[in-house]
Amino acid sequence: MTITITAFECSPDRGQGLARDTRVRWALEEVGLPYQVRHLTFQTMKEAAHLALNPFGQIPTFEEGELAIFETGAIIFHIAQNHAGLLPDEANARTRAVTWMFAALNTVEPPILEFSGMRIFERDKPWYQDRMPMIEDRVRTRLDQLSARLGDAEWLDGPFSAADLLMISVLLRLKPSGMLNNHPVLAAYVARGEARPAYQRAFEAQLEDWRMGSQRAAAS
Amino acid sequence: MTITITAFECSPDRGQGLARDTRVRWALEEVGLPYQVRHLTFQTMKEAAHLALNPFGQIPTFEEGELAIFETGAIIFHIAQNHAGLLPDEANARTRAVTWMFAALNTVEPPILEFSGMRIFERDKPWYQDRMPMIEDRVRTRLDQLSARLGDAEWLDGPFSAADLLMISVLLRLKPSGMLNNHPVLAAYVARGEARPAYQRAFEAQLEDWRMGSQRAAAS
Repeated sequence: MTITITAFECSPDRGQGLARDTRVRWALEEVGLPYQVRHLTFQTMKEAAHLALNPFGQIPTFEEGELAIFETGAIIFHIAQNHAGLLPDEANARTRAVTWMFAALNTVEPPILEFSGMRIFERDKPWYQDRMPMIEDRVRTRLDQLSARLGDAEWLDGPFSAADLLMISVLLRLKPSGMLNNHPVLAAYVARGEARPAYQRAFEAQLEDWRMGSQRAAAS
Repeated sequence: MTITITAFECSPDRGQGLARDTRVRWALEEVGLPYQVRHLTFQTMKEAAHLALNPFGQIPTFEEGELAIFETGAIIFHIAQNHAGLLPDEANARTRAVTWMFAALNTVEPPILEFSGMRIFERDKPWYQDRMPMIEDRVRTRLDQLSARLGDAEWLDGPFSAADLLMISVLLRLKPSGMLNNHPVLAAYVARGEARPAYQRAFEAQLEDWRMGSQRAAAS
């Protein structure tokens, strides 16, 4: 069955790979599944056809036969559950990997999103300088805790899993800020993720999409 | 096997049921599993014994035999996957329910947490009045979208599931602000959740724990 995901026609991060479709592409590449991409503009994302797929008007979505789902975490869990390579087989190890998937998205990403959102949308606000240290502290607390747990392990819990895929994707959001430089354990962990061939294929695919999308936008 | 969860010795919400152990208690009550609670203070939450269970020093955690996990979403998914009553049996319906679990925690809760965090921690900041409308707008957008999707359905997708349990728990955070009053579809949805006997048992249990904890704190 053909897999179709949605992504930005022209990603606002200009092909840095931070839009969430990169996470899904990476998972699909890890398990060796081909996929096609339907591109959406900021306008078509909010139209009825896409809202029927994702009521919150976001990318990515995932369609495969009669199944149509949204939410990156759920899409990656679905891929991981149905194809070998992204979750351990043993029941308790699998449950721990799912725990780390939720930890990436619910405990580590929220302060990082607040931090990167401030940098993008509130840089010109009068409170930017005064409020930012509080937000940076929240990020630093999570990085310290994650770094302490990871220690000298290669991945979060045994072999590479969907949890590492998500955690590394979440940490990649910090790259433009340089904030990972103070956490060498995490910087090395992220680099191990980026070095995976599946990540590189996913990154190149979204970058090529951005190149094509920006050319189309320039020509229109 | 005995199930042990962790919760606050004396919840900072004074028994309003907004601490995340309530979500786990609710899931356990829905499937009829007994559990015991180990109470933690703000100090013991940050000590090595608890950090071994949850590296981010938060509650709740979940222990059952050799399995020890954290993250509310993962705990509830584990309970739902192993006991009837919280996830549909049919594969695609189950995947859609998991989608809504992630949607509750990753798309709907983040702006609500930012909103309630501002109300608690930044009320005295000079930027509070100017920044709040932006945060309220983000919450309102999500509520509008969720309300439009829910429409006159009883639950998110077919019978009550772990997704409803999480979505209603997330929306309950808005109750103190009165913000749900402008979304009658969602207010009624939350009320249906609160009316479930399993929710009421979970709420009473955490309230009783808070009463006991605050008495101990007063006596010491």
